Amino acid sequence: MQKPSLPKGTRDFGTIQMARRNYILDSIKGTFQLFGFNQIETPAMENLNTLTGKYGDEGDQLLFKVLNSGDYLKNVSEEDLQNGYKQTLTKVSEKGLRYDLTVPFARFVVMNRNDLTFPFKRFQIQPVWRADRPQKGRYREFYQCDADVVGTDSLLCEAEIVLMIRSVFEKLKLNDYSIKLNNRKILTGISEAIGEAGKEGPLCVAIDKLDKIGWEKVKEELSDRGFADDSIEKLVPLVKLEADQAGKLSFLKEFLATSEVGLQGVTELEEVFQILTDMGENLDFVDLDIMLARGLSYYTGAIFEVKVNHVSIGSVSGGGRYDNLTENFGLKEKMSGVGFSFGVDRLYDVLEELSLFPDDSIQSTKVLLTHFDDKAFVYALGLMKKFRAAGIKAELYPDLTKMKKQLDFASKKAIPFVGICGDSEIDANVIALKNLETGAQESVSIEVAIERLK
Amino acid sequence: MQKPSLPKGTRDFGTIQMARRNYILDSIKGTFQLFGFNQIETPAMENLNTLTGKYGDEGDQLLFKVLNSGDYLKNVSEEDLQNGYKQTLTKVSEKGLRYDLTVPFARFVVMNRNDLTFPFKRFQIQPVWRADRPQKGRYREFYQCDADVVGTDSLLCEAEIVLMIRSVFEKLKLNDYSIKLNNRKILTGISEAIGEAGKEGPLCVAIDKLDKIGWEKVKEELSDRGFADDSIEKLVPLVKLEADQAGKLSFLKEFLATSEVGLQGVTELEEVFQILTDMGENLDFVDLDIMLARGLSYYTGAIFEVKVNHVSIGSVSGGGRYDNLTENFGLKEKMSGVGFSFGVDRLYDVLEELSLFPDDSIQSTKVLLTHFDDKAFVYALGLMKKFRAAGIKAELYPDLTKMKKQLDFASKKAIPFVGICGDSEIDANVIALKNLETGAQESVSIEVAIERLK
Repeated sequence: MQKPSLPKGTRDFGTIQMARRNYILDSIKGTFQLFGFNQIETPAMENLNTLTGKYGDEGDQLLFKVLNSGDYLKNVSEEDLQNGYKQTLTKVSEKGLRYDLTVPFARFVVMNRNDLTFPFKRFQIQPVWRADRPQKGRYREFYQCDADVVGTDSLLCEAEIVLMIRSVFEKLKLNDYSIKLNNRKILTGISEAIGEAGKEGPLCVAIDKLDKIGWEKVKEELSDRGFADDSIEKLVPLVKLEADQAGKLSFLKEFLATSEVGLQGVTELEEVFQILTDMGENLDFVDLDIMLARGLSYYTGAIFEVKVNHVSIGSVSGGGRYDNLTENFGLKEKMSGVGFSFGVDRLYDVLEELSLFPDDSIQSTKVLLTHFDDKAFVYALGLMKKFRAAGIKAELYPDLTKMKKQLDFASKKAIPFVGICGDSEIDANVIALKNLETGAQESVSIEVAIERLK
Repeated sequence: MQKPSLPKGTRDFGTIQMARRNYILDSIKGTFQLFGFNQIETPAMENLNTLTGKYGDEGDQLLFKVLNSGDYLKNVSEEDLQNGYKQTLTKVSEKGLRYDLTVPFARFVVMNRNDLTFPFKRFQIQPVWRADRPQKGRYREFYQCDADVVGTDSLLCEAEIVLMIRSVFEKLKLNDYSIKLNNRKILTGISEAIGEAGKEGPLCVAIDKLDKIGWEKVKEELSDRGFADDSIEKLVPLVKLEADQAGKLSFLKEFLATSEVGLQGVTELEEVFQILTDMGENLDFVDLDIMLARGLSYYTGAIFEVKVNHVSIGSVSGGGRYDNLTENFGLKEKMSGVGFSFGVDRLYDVLEELSLFPDDSIQSTKVLLTHFDDKAFVYALGLMKKFRAAGIKAELYPDLTKMKKQLDFASKKAIPFVGICGDSEIDANVIALKNLETGAQESVSIEVAIERLK
C-alpha cells in the first residue's frame, strides 16, 4: 500500500495556517468591501486559447495543462508524434489551470461587458498554478488577491489604492512600511529627456537593478544595451537625487521640461497626492520613487510597490494603471483601469516574522466542557446549548475518559478555557471555569460564565 | 482575434452570485466554528496514485488529469502508443484534480497523524472537478463543503450534526425541511432478519428507489437480484409501516429481534435521540427513515439526508459514520469518524426558489457620493473618509459626469443611498441623503447621515 504524498511544490493548510491566512484575507476583504469592491470568482480551468500567448514564452511553458477526457490520443497522428510533444500539445489538451487572476478577469469583462456596471470594481481571491521550479517561498499553487477598477481614468482610484493598502496594514498592525509610487510616464519622459526616446523598456530593466548591483554595474548594462555615454551621464543627477517629495517633484519638472509625457506623469502624481491631502491623509507613508520600474510592459500610468521595513521579505503588494485590459481578446473599445494585489503568502511570512498574529487568530473553540461520568455529560450538554446560543464557540469532549486527556485536548487545540462539571457543580447548578493560561479556577453561574467567555 | 469562452461545464461567479454564495458559506462556516470545527485546505492537484481506485472505475474515468510538465512524451514508447491511451496515461500524467474532499482529507490525516489532536474536527470548503457530462445543475467544477470528526465513536457527533444542520437552516431562514436519519446497521439487520444475510448492498440499491419506482418495481428488482420470494414478502410490513418515531423504534426492535447488529443500530439511534432530548431539542425535524440507504458501501453507522420540503430540488445535505477513513492509505490503526456535507449549489437554488436571499446579501456599497464639480468632489472626499471610518461601505463616483449617470450607476449596483453634495450642502456643511428605494431625500448633518446609514 502506498505512502501518500503531495505533488511537488504544493502544500496543505492545516488548522493554524488556515486560520492565520483567513485572518489576513478577512482583513483584506473587509477593506475591499468598505471601498465598494465586489468579489467575483472564475473557474480554475480556462481554455488554453484564453491563456496561451498572454504570459510570454516562459509563461506558456509554466502553464499546467489538463489532459482531454477520454481517448486524448484520438486526434494525434503518427506525424505529430514524430514532431515531438509541442506539436501534439494542442491535440491532447484544450484546457489549462489559471496562471494569474488578470487574464481570467479580462476574459470575464469581455464576456460580460454588456451586463457589468462601469466603472467596474472587482476583487478576486483564488489560487493560481505555475509549473515553476519549487523553492523556498515559491510554490506551484498559491493564492493571489487582486482588486481592479476598470472603465475610468480617474486618479481617485490611485489614491484609493494607497488608502486601501493603509487600511489593510492598520488592521494587521503593520506600521513600519513604505508605499513606493511612480508613474510609467515619468520613466518614458526620462528616456526622452536623456536623448534615448523609446528606450524606456531597457532603461527600466537596468535601473530596476540599482538596489542590487549599484550604479556602476547599471551604467555598464546601459552601455551594453546601446545607451550613449552622454545619455547615461545625464542620469547621474536623478540617480544621486536626495530630496523630499516636494524636492523630487520640482527636480522632475525641470528634468522633464522637454518631455510632454514626462510632465503629464508628474501632474498625475501631484493629483494623487492632492486627493490624499484633501482627504486629510498623512503622506509620510507614500514615497515617490523615481527609480521604481516594475512590470513595465503592462503598465501605462501609476506604479505601486509596497515593502515592509526591517524584514527580509520582498514587496508584499504592488500594481499599477494599464491602458487596455482587454486588447488580447480583440475588444475594440479600450478598457483602461488600475489594479493592485496583495501577496498573501508574503504577508503571512511578514506577520510571522514580526509575531503579529493575534492569539485568537487561531479562531479556536473558546471553552471545552469536560465530564467524569454520564451524569456530568448530560449536565454539560445543557450548558453547551446555552453557551452556543450566546455565540460562544463551545465543545464537549465526546468520550468518557480521564480528565488529563481532556485537558491535554484543550491545550493542544489552544482552547483557552475549560469548564469542569463535577457533582458539586451539578448540585449547585454552576460550572468550574478554569483559565488554562493562568491556571485560575472559579465556580460561577452559567450567566456569569457566559459573560466571562464572551 | 478569438472570442473568449469558458470550458464546458464551468462558470463564472459574478458579483451577485458570489455575494449570495458567500452568504450561504458564511452561515455554514459560522456554525462549524461554533461547534469547534477548524478549517483546512488541501491542494487542487493530488498525485494520481492518491486519487485513482478510490471512486470506482467510473470515478477514475471522470478524474481530470494534468499533463506532466515539459516533454510529457519522453517516457512513452512506440509500443505504449499502439496499446492506446490508457496504456500511456500513467506516463504522460502524474497528477489529477481533486474529485471530492474526502480522499484528500484521508490523505491529510495519514500524513499529519502525529501532529493532529484527536478527536480531530475539521471542515473544508473547496471546489472539486469531475469530467461528467454537463447538464442542468451539474457542473464540472463545483464547491463541496464538508465537516468531519475522526478519532471517536461518540454518538454526540451524530447529535451535533443534526444540531449543525438546524443551526445553518435557521440562519438561512429555512424552516420547512426534514432531516432523515437511519443507521446502516439497521439495514444490515433487515437483510439478516429476512433471511438474506450479507445482501444489504443490493437490498439498499433496490429500496433506495422506492420513492421513484414504487414497491411493485422494487419487488421485481429484488427478485432479479436473487432474493427469495418469502424474503421479499417479509419486507412488506416494513415498507408499509406508518408510525411515529416511537412506533418505528418498537417495530424495529421486534423485527430485528434475531439480529444483534440490527438491534445495535436501533440502540445507536435511540442514543442520538436521547442526547438531542437532553439538550432540550425538539425532535420534530428528525425523521427516522428506515428506507434511507444512501452511499452504503462507505458508511457503517448513522446515515443522514436532508431535504427541504415543497421545492423540486434533491437533498441539500447528507453524510454518515464510517469505520475506517484511512484504510486506502494502508494505515494500520483504524480511524473511524462521522461526517456530512452541504450541497452549496443546491442550497443556492433552494434559497432562490423560495426568495430567501436577504436584500443585503449582495453586500454592496451602502452609499454613493455624487458630485457636480471639483469643489463638490473635494467636499465628498472628506465625507467619504468619515463614512468609511464609521465602517460604512462608501464610494465616490470617480468621474465628473451628469448626475443621471451617477444615479444610474448607484441603482445598477443596488446601492441603497446616494449622498448629494451641491453648493448649498457644502455651505451648510450637510449632505442631501436620498433613499433610492423610496425616493425620499433629506439634508442632514454628517453625524446624522452616519446614524442613518449604519
